[in-house]
Amino acid sequence: MEESNAILLLSCPDSKGLVARLSNFIFQNNGNIVDADQYTSKQGKIFFMRIEWELDGFALSREEIPIVFAPLARQYHMKWTLHFTDYVPRTAIFVSRHLHCLHDLILRRHMGELDASVEAVISNHPDARDLVEQFGINFFHFPITPNNKQEQENRQAALLRELKIDLIVLARYMQILSGDFIGSHINRIINIHHSFLPAFSGSNPYQQAFDRGVKIIGATAHYTTEQLDEGPIIAQDVVKITHRDTLADIQTKSKDLERIVLARALRLHLDNKIIVYGAKTVVFE
Amino acid sequence: MEESNAILLLSCPDSKGLVARLSNFIFQNNGNIVDADQYTSKQGKIFFMRIEWELDGFALSREEIPIVFAPLARQYHMKWTLHFTDYVPRTAIFVSRHLHCLHDLILRRHMGELDASVEAVISNHPDARDLVEQFGINFFHFPITPNNKQEQENRQAALLRELKIDLIVLARYMQILSGDFIGSHINRIINIHHSFLPAFSGSNPYQQAFDRGVKIIGATAHYTTEQLDEGPIIAQDVVKITHRDTLADIQTKSKDLERIVLARALRLHLDNKIIVYGAKTVVFE
Amino acid sequence: MEESNAILLLSCPDSKGLVARLSNFIFQNNGNIVDADQYTSKQGKIFFMRIEWELDGFALSREEIPIVFAPLARQYHMKWTLHFTDYVPRTAIFVSRHLHCLHDLILRRHMGELDASVEAVISNHPDARDLVEQFGINFFHFPITPNNKQEQENRQAALLRELKIDLIVLARYMQILSGDFIGSHINRIINIHHSFLPAFSGSNPYQQAFDRGVKIIGATAHYTTEQLDEGPIIAQDVVKITHRDTLADIQTKSKDLERIVLARALRLHLDNKIIVYGAKTVVFE
Amino acid sequence: MEESNAILLLSCPDSKGLVARLSNFIFQNNGNIVDADQYTSKQGKIFFMRIEWELDGFALSREEIPIVFAPLARQYHMKWTLHFTDYVPRTAIFVSRHLHCLHDLILRRHMGELDASVEAVISNHPDARDLVEQFGINFFHFPITPNNKQEQENRQAALLRELKIDLIVLARYMQILSGDFIGSHINRIINIHHSFLPAFSGSNPYQQAFDRGVKIIGATAHYTTEQLDEGPIIAQDVVKITHRDTLADIQTKSKDLERIVLARALRLHLDNKIIVYGAKTVVFE
Repeated sequence: MEESNAILLLSCPDSKGLVARLSNFIFQNNGNIVDADQYTSKQGKIFFMRIEWELDGFALSREEIPIVFAPLARQYHMKWTLHFTDYVPRTAIFVSRHLHCLHDLILRRHMGELDASVEAVISNHPDARDLVEQFGINFFHFPITPNNKQEQENRQAALLRELKIDLIVLARYMQILSGDFIGSHINRIINIHHSFLPAFSGSNPYQQAFDRGVKIIGATAHYTTEQLDEGPIIAQDVVKITHRDTLADIQTKSKDLERIVLARALRLHLDNKIIVYGAKTVVFE
Repeated sequence: MEESNAILLLSCPDSKGLVARLSNFIFQNNGNIVDADQYTSKQGKIFFMRIEWELDGFALSREEIPIVFAPLARQYHMKWTLHFTDYVPRTAIFVSRHLHCLHDLILRRHMGELDASVEAVISNHPDARDLVEQFGINFFHFPITPNNKQEQENRQAALLRELKIDLIVLARYMQILSGDFIGSHINRIINIHHSFLPAFSGSNPYQQAFDRGVKIIGATAHYTTEQLDEGPIIAQDVVKITHRDTLADIQTKSKDLERIVLARALRLHLDNKIIVYGAKTVVFE
Repeated sequence: MEESNAILLLSCPDSKGLVARLSNFIFQNNGNIVDADQYTSKQGKIFFMRIEWELDGFALSREEIPIVFAPLARQYHMKWTLHFTDYVPRTAIFVSRHLHCLHDLILRRHMGELDASVEAVISNHPDARDLVEQFGINFFHFPITPNNKQEQENRQAALLRELKIDLIVLARYMQILSGDFIGSHINRIINIHHSFLPAFSGSNPYQQAFDRGVKIIGATAHYTTEQLDEGPIIAQDVVKITHRDTLADIQTKSKDLERIVLARALRLHLDNKIIVYGAKTVVFE
Repeated sequence: MEESNAILLLSCPDSKGLVARLSNFIFQNNGNIVDADQYTSKQGKIFFMRIEWELDGFALSREEIPIVFAPLARQYHMKWTLHFTDYVPRTAIFVSRHLHCLHDLILRRHMGELDASVEAVISNHPDARDLVEQFGINFFHFPITPNNKQEQENRQAALLRELKIDLIVLARYMQILSGDFIGSHINRIINIHHSFLPAFSGSNPYQQAFDRGVKIIGATAHYTTEQLDEGPIIAQDVVKITHRDTLADIQTKSKDLERIVLARALRLHLDNKIIVYGAKTVVFE
């Protein structure tokens, strides 16, 4: 069995001795660093670091770590989060009628590839219910009309709180979420957009790509922000197309791509390898 | 030595018997087809075909082919062009201060990889002169000011006519060409744009990509039309970047990509494998 | 609803007038060609062609086509097969313990992406039974021991005959099939190998790739022949890895790749876009 | 102007407190770390680290650093090398008759992209002389016969010593180097092989790839060891091919790839981002 590790993700203005201070903090508490990745942006001189160390033999309990670390973090004006590799994040998957990403995630979970639990699948359509329940996952149907949109979102938010959801996955969810909802889940909503952003943002990117005659199509996974399709990008990939590809062919090729890119972004998030700063991400791959 | 072939590129409204009529035309004149590629668009039902046959033993002379073919073409309302594989197209390369694509093309020509002659390198800056002339190619410097822009373009156009230029390559030429100039060279100007169009059209796509935090950058080769960066796309490719890539790193990676993509587009054009229709291309690869 | 088309796949020694003869055959029977792709190998001068035409309005019935076409085929020594786009091929999927490709195919079928029926899943292990049956597909367990291997293969062959299977998919089936079995299903068994063949043929390519320290891993879908891992290659793709990727990471990345590559190869086969010649394939994409 | 930095590349058995010890060494001498990348192999528990810090304000002179660092290195049984970013490594390029990689490197140098000097181009053929000298680089012709092979290699080695060459680039050099020669330049010879190793090692990989009917070809840059084509891999990349690609097409596509892959490997080496261990590399990208 794998041992449990702690992971610190942090960013702050660059300053002499930061790596030393951070590694000393761990060493002096008898920790063994198994992975340290550090990067200082040339623009703005921001220091980013991901440190992972073994909990086995570490002098501080999980509860003590943040308390003991806080003064050091304050001194350097750090933004930081602390994670434990044996914690299984609780996710909710939002989906509408295109189910390929949902299917993919369910199968990855079934194969033991997804280091997260799926506590709920939430949809504005009932289509996915049978398959979802067949795999023993709870399905919640929230039909959306122009009149009940805000009310339904409130009920969804309540459900997420109740289920203690850590991460929301928009696996081709075609409803726009309110600024309030997004603001309550900053860097905790991952969306898959079926184009190579910023190209073909907005609706029907397949049609846009077909009409423009591009020779490559893409998919983009990003954190959702209030500005639609402008959130920090986590992962992107592309596939070649030719003039022979019909709109349907483009869709088929894109669907494979969307599944791969969303899964990759999820893996990076669940492995605590992402730090968001401004409109961009640092991804410690 | 390779034998010479003839190539017909054509498009027309779809109609029963087109392949038969075209292949009979060649067969009845004792021609041997070595490559035939045909495609009918599902949208609009347009018929596209590229046929290549051996001239050796063909009953018609090069001059007779278009005369004998014209009535058949008229009957089906074909747009068509006729090419011979032993003709060496005459190109002019336009360049400003970023010389990586120019260098690449000059070396490909030097290595015998480019099936075209380079009759002129034309630039609004003198920087490239030494290298160009070192390889025995004529260099023409047309300094551009707000006042002489139109006049210089007229002189460039005259030079192109005088040199009987078949194809203009904009190898990072930073001046905007007039509608008249472009209109006189339809589907005969290939531009390399240093982004994955339609993303980051316009100026400084490197900076735009850096600011947006994309994880992949691209390059696009396209025929130039009056609408800047909206001409029919011939070839695109991409390369991955990470948060560690500075603006300078992005530029370095992109330059490799631009060279490859421009060379690929040129090869497709020079091999007569492209049919333009509307804002798109059919590329028979 | 889509109209039904007929597809001819053929190869023969090159000869003047072949395209004309073939397109005339269709035109004179009042057929409309919707796609024609032709290629003549420079080595050996072999002529390959794929022609697809509309059955609607065609003068010959499905039964008459091969009878009327046979003399023409004989004259040019053609190898040829005839297909109809509304026929749904019947497949059997063989699998052992790695189920990711099986899962993927089942979901593609569920989403309506697979233009084939899955008549049976056949395995030497019982692991996949629940999932397979949950999707309404028949599961057959053939446990294999050193003593019963030939006997079980005979029973499998009988089952395939009984189910009128057109195509066998080896979706990570870890048993070696006999020469007799393979000989009875030439070009009708597609295997996915989890490496970039011919690199890392044989067993445990993940470990081989890890030990060699390659920076890219691949997957290969090919028709199975008696020479293990040497059958004609249909599709290949790759993904980058780094020194940070453990054996488990390589496996996870490869599994995504294997699913994509196998699905792509299946699609090409089911769309009748592949002609095998010798140890290679012509793929009309 | 860019400030100068120091870079430590090191590996040793993993041990608690290594990151702290190393970062303290720099901090206590008043250094500012600008980049730290660390990795511990799961297999064998080897600790690898690359640390880059600013020399400006550092308490130790360049000469003092190795003296002061040595005891710490000894204590942990480190293998380590020290580099300075303002040092311009001196390279020699070996080439035979295929000149595309040589051309590419010369142009990169001309464009200021190569952070190294080219002190010599060494060839067993005279073909490259004119181009090389045109760019102001010294060209040395060492004709090789079965009889003079060892003698010529000795003369080459003497020249390399005289020119104080740091790095040898085998840019398609078709002569096999002796074990003695390679042994004297461990991890200082980079070779480009025109296949996706370990596939198609040995001679004529283009032909091998063509005959096998692969759908993707590759190129591999690696450090040269006595076992031909088995040295630690630095970089690999691939490009798709189809049945339409002749041997000549494969060569043309591969040549573009070889240039890119060799240039990428050189950049990684010159940026001091590579640690070799056994038959593999850790590349801190």
